[in-house]
Amino acid sequence: MNADFRIFNTLTRKKEKFKPINPSFAGIYVCGPTVYGDPHLGHARPAIVFDILYRYLLHLGYKVRYIRNITDVGHLEHDSDDGEDKIAKKAKSEQIEPMEVAQYYSNRYRKYMHKLNLLLPSIEPRASGHIIEQIELIKRIFDAGYAYEVNGSVYFDVKKYNEKYQYGILSGRKIDDLFSNTRELSGQQEKRFFADFALWKKANPEHIMKWNSPWGLGFPGWHLECSAMGTKYLGEQFDIHGGGMDLIFPHHESEIAQCVVANGKNHAKYWMHNNMITINGQKMAKSLNNFITLDELFTGNHKLLEKAYSPMTIKFFILQAHYRSTLDFSNHALLSAEKGMRKIIDAFKNTESLPVQETDEINTMTLLNNAKNAINDDLNTPVVIAQLFEAARIINSAKAGNTKISKKNLNELKILYNDYFISILGLNDTENKSENNLEKELIELLLEIRQQAKNEKQYTISDAIRDKLNKMDIEVKDTADGPVWRVK
Amino acid sequence: MNADFRIFNTLTRKKEKFKPINPSFAGIYVCGPTVYGDPHLGHARPAIVFDILYRYLLHLGYKVRYIRNITDVGHLEHDSDDGEDKIAKKAKSEQIEPMEVAQYYSNRYRKYMHKLNLLLPSIEPRASGHIIEQIELIKRIFDAGYAYEVNGSVYFDVKKYNEKYQYGILSGRKIDDLFSNTRELSGQQEKRFFADFALWKKANPEHIMKWNSPWGLGFPGWHLECSAMGTKYLGEQFDIHGGGMDLIFPHHESEIAQCVVANGKNHAKYWMHNNMITINGQKMAKSLNNFITLDELFTGNHKLLEKAYSPMTIKFFILQAHYRSTLDFSNHALLSAEKGMRKIIDAFKNTESLPVQETDEINTMTLLNNAKNAINDDLNTPVVIAQLFEAARIINSAKAGNTKISKKNLNELKILYNDYFISILGLNDTENKSENNLEKELIELLLEIRQQAKNEKQYTISDAIRDKLNKMDIEVKDTADGPVWRVK
Repeated sequence: MNADFRIFNTLTRKKEKFKPINPSFAGIYVCGPTVYGDPHLGHARPAIVFDILYRYLLHLGYKVRYIRNITDVGHLEHDSDDGEDKIAKKAKSEQIEPMEVAQYYSNRYRKYMHKLNLLLPSIEPRASGHIIEQIELIKRIFDAGYAYEVNGSVYFDVKKYNEKYQYGILSGRKIDDLFSNTRELSGQQEKRFFADFALWKKANPEHIMKWNSPWGLGFPGWHLECSAMGTKYLGEQFDIHGGGMDLIFPHHESEIAQCVVANGKNHAKYWMHNNMITINGQKMAKSLNNFITLDELFTGNHKLLEKAYSPMTIKFFILQAHYRSTLDFSNHALLSAEKGMRKIIDAFKNTESLPVQETDEINTMTLLNNAKNAINDDLNTPVVIAQLFEAARIINSAKAGNTKISKKNLNELKILYNDYFISILGLNDTENKSENNLEKELIELLLEIRQQAKNEKQYTISDAIRDKLNKMDIEVKDTADGPVWRVK
Repeated sequence: MNADFRIFNTLTRKKEKFKPINPSFAGIYVCGPTVYGDPHLGHARPAIVFDILYRYLLHLGYKVRYIRNITDVGHLEHDSDDGEDKIAKKAKSEQIEPMEVAQYYSNRYRKYMHKLNLLLPSIEPRASGHIIEQIELIKRIFDAGYAYEVNGSVYFDVKKYNEKYQYGILSGRKIDDLFSNTRELSGQQEKRFFADFALWKKANPEHIMKWNSPWGLGFPGWHLECSAMGTKYLGEQFDIHGGGMDLIFPHHESEIAQCVVANGKNHAKYWMHNNMITINGQKMAKSLNNFITLDELFTGNHKLLEKAYSPMTIKFFILQAHYRSTLDFSNHALLSAEKGMRKIIDAFKNTESLPVQETDEINTMTLLNNAKNAINDDLNTPVVIAQLFEAARIINSAKAGNTKISKKNLNELKILYNDYFISILGLNDTENKSENNLEKELIELLLEIRQQAKNEKQYTISDAIRDKLNKMDIEVKDTADGPVWRVK
C-alpha cells in the first residue's frame, strides 16, 4: 500500500494521509443520484471523481468496497422538509407509479455512467429498499433523546444536539448564522427550532410512497438514508464519504449528527467533496435553462453546443480541473479538451513504431514520479494530465528525430500511459466511437488496400477509399510513416 | 385491443381469452433470478418468453406495467425452509458482503438480458428492499389466523388453510400426496404440519442478512416477497403472474395461499408457466455438470459446444419451441437454429431489390393472418416462425424468378418481418455481432473496391480483400446479383 496518498478532508479542512481503518481494506460511500431526471453534467462530475478514487485505491492494492446509493424516496423539492417528493412529483406528472420513474432514471443513469467508462460500484443500495434500517436508526436517535414526534412526523433536535456536539462541524456554519438565511416555510411550525430537520415525515393520504412505522404511515427524511445505508454496508465507522460540495450542508452535516447520536461517532473518517460545474460562468440550473444532460452532450443536441462530444472528451474535460476547483463549462472548453486528449492519444499511438537508441538523453522517470506525486496529492488529475502532455511532446519529438529515446524511456512512457491514462483516469483511446475491434481491422485493411493501389498507380481506387472513409467521418492523413486515421 | 389473445392459465388448466382487469392496462409480475450465480439457459427461457408477452401486449396497444423481481434474500438451498441462504453462502465462500454478491450477479444478469435484446422491465424490485412490506403481510396473515410463531420463526398454517381453501389449487397437488414425498429435515420439527412453510425465519447470530421484526431478528420466507411486491406495485389483484414451471409448487402455490388469507383473493388472474430446458435429454443441473451459462454459449467456451452462438441464435432456438413444451438443448439443435434464422434473415435482405409485378399469383395475407392467429394462440412462436420460413421460401423463389409477387405481397412480407421477427419476437438481423452501422458500411465499401478492382482486372487486390475479410470471419460469396457477405 502507498502511505503517501493524501486527501483533503473537508472535516479537518486540510490534506491528510490516507490511513484506512482496517489495513488493506478501504470503504467508500458516495451520494448518488436522485432518480427523477436524465443524468447531466452535475451527475457526471462526482461519478467521475469518485470513480478515480476507487480506481486509484484498487491500483494501490486495497480491497475496496465502493457504495453509491440511489435516492428514490424522501428527497423533497428545494432539498427542504416541506416540498413535494421529487420522484412522486414526476410520477404524478407522467401518470405512472413512482418506482417506474425511479427504475427508468436508474437505468438511464447506469447507461450513461457506463458510457463514461466508470466502474460499477460494489453495491448500489436504494433508499426505498432500506426503510426498516432507517426506522431503526430513528429509534436509536429517539432512545438517545435527540428526536421528537409531532403529529406523525419526527424531527431531529438540532438545538439540543448543538449543546453537546457541534452542528456545523463539517460545514463550518454556525447555527446563529443559519437562522438569518432561513425562510419560514409551511410545515416549519411543527419544528421546535428552525434548524431541526425531518427524520420521518407523515404521509398525507394521497402520498403513494409511504410505509408503516411506530409513528404511523410516512416516509424517511432525506438525510437518513445515507447514515443508514453507509453504516449497514461499511460499518459504524468507515473510511471515506464523498459527494458534491452542495451536499455538505445540510445533507452531510445532518448525516453526521444522526450517526454521532445513534452510534456515538461520525461515520466517516475522511469527507471528500467535489466542486460544482458552472456554465459560461453562471450557475448550472434547470431554472436558468443552461442545463445540459449527458445525452445532449453526446449527441450535440443543445443550443450551447457546436457539435457532439464523446464521453471520453467530457471526462477529459472534467479531469483537466482539480476536483475541488469550480469548472466552467463552455463549448470552447470542450473543443480544447477534445483537441488536447487527441494530441495525447495520437502521440501514444506512435510508441510501437518509435526507434529506440542507446542513449541517456532524457529522463522519463520524472514524468512517472510527477504523475505519482500528483495523484497522491489529493487526486491532482490536471497535473497527471500535464505529464501525459509532456510525454506526448517527447514522443512527437522523438518521432521527428529531434529527441533520442532509450528502450527504458519507451517503457516508462508506456507505463505512464497504461497506468494513468487508461487505468487510473479510466480514459480510453477509442472515444467510445470505435470500441469494436472489427471496425479498426476493417479500416486498416482499407488503408492497406489503398496503399497497394497507390503503389500500383491505381489512383481511382486509392482516392475512392479515402473519399468514402471521409464520408463515414474517418479522416485519413498521409504522413512520412504511412497513412494514419482517426474518427472525426 | 385484441379480444382474441388467448393464454393458457395454469390455474384453470385451459386457454382463456385475455381480459385485463382494467381495460387498456395490463399488469405482469414475473419471478426473476436469485442472484448468486451467472445467468444460464434456465434464466434465459422465462426472461425471453415473458419479454415476448410484454412486447405483444405493448404491440396490441396496452399500457403495460411489467415487474420482474430480483431475489436477493430468503431463497434457501434446495428451495427448502432449512438450508443456507443461497446468496449468504456464496458471500461466505467469496468473503464479501452478501449485497456485493447480489449486486454483482444482478449486473451480470442485466448485461446478458440486454444481449438477448430483452426490454427492461418497468420495475425490478428486490426482496431485501421490501422487508417492511413482507412484515406487514405476515401481520395480516397472523390477523387472519393462519400464521403461528415458534421460537422466533413464523410459519403458514397450511392445514388450517386447506380446511377452508385449497392448498393445491394451482399445482393440482393434494396434501396427502405431498406427505409421501416429504423428507423430514432438520428444523422441520418447529412446524405443526409437514406442509407448512416459513413466513419468517429466525436468524442465528452469524447470519448477516437479518432485520428486526415483531418476532425478533430474522429474514423473510422465500414465497413472501412475490406476494408482497406483486401486490405493492400492481394492486391486490393483477392480470398475469409468470414464471418457470418449477415454481408452481411450492412457490406460487404458497404465494396464492398468502394472498388469499391476507387480501381475500388470489393476486393474479392468469398464471403462466414456461417449461424447462433439458440437455441432451437430461435434466440441466449443476450437479450433473451439464449446466451452460449464457457467457459460455456466447463464447463457445463449454465442452458441449462446437462453437460460439450469438444471443439471437439462442433466442431463436428457444422460440422454435412453444413455451409450454420442454426444450432439449444440444449443440446440434443450436446449429440448426443458427442456420434457420440465417435463412430468414438472408431472404428478407433481398426484399428491397425484389422485382414486383402486376400479379395475383400468391396470397401473403395468409401468412400475416397465420402469424397473428399463432401469437394469439398462447404465444405460439414456433408457428409464427413457420410463417417466416414460408415467407423466406416465397422471397427466394421470387428472386429466382419462379414466383411472381405484387407490390401488395412485398408490403405484406415486410410487415410480417417487422411486426413479428423484429418487434414481437424481438430478434434482429445483426446477430449482435455487427450492431454497429459503421462496420456494415466499411464492409460494403471493401466489397465495392473489390468489385472495382475485379473490373479493372486487379486480381491481387480483389483476392486480398476477400481473404482478409475471411480472416476477420466475414464470409464473402459471389452471386449472380453481386457479392453478399455475412459474419461467420
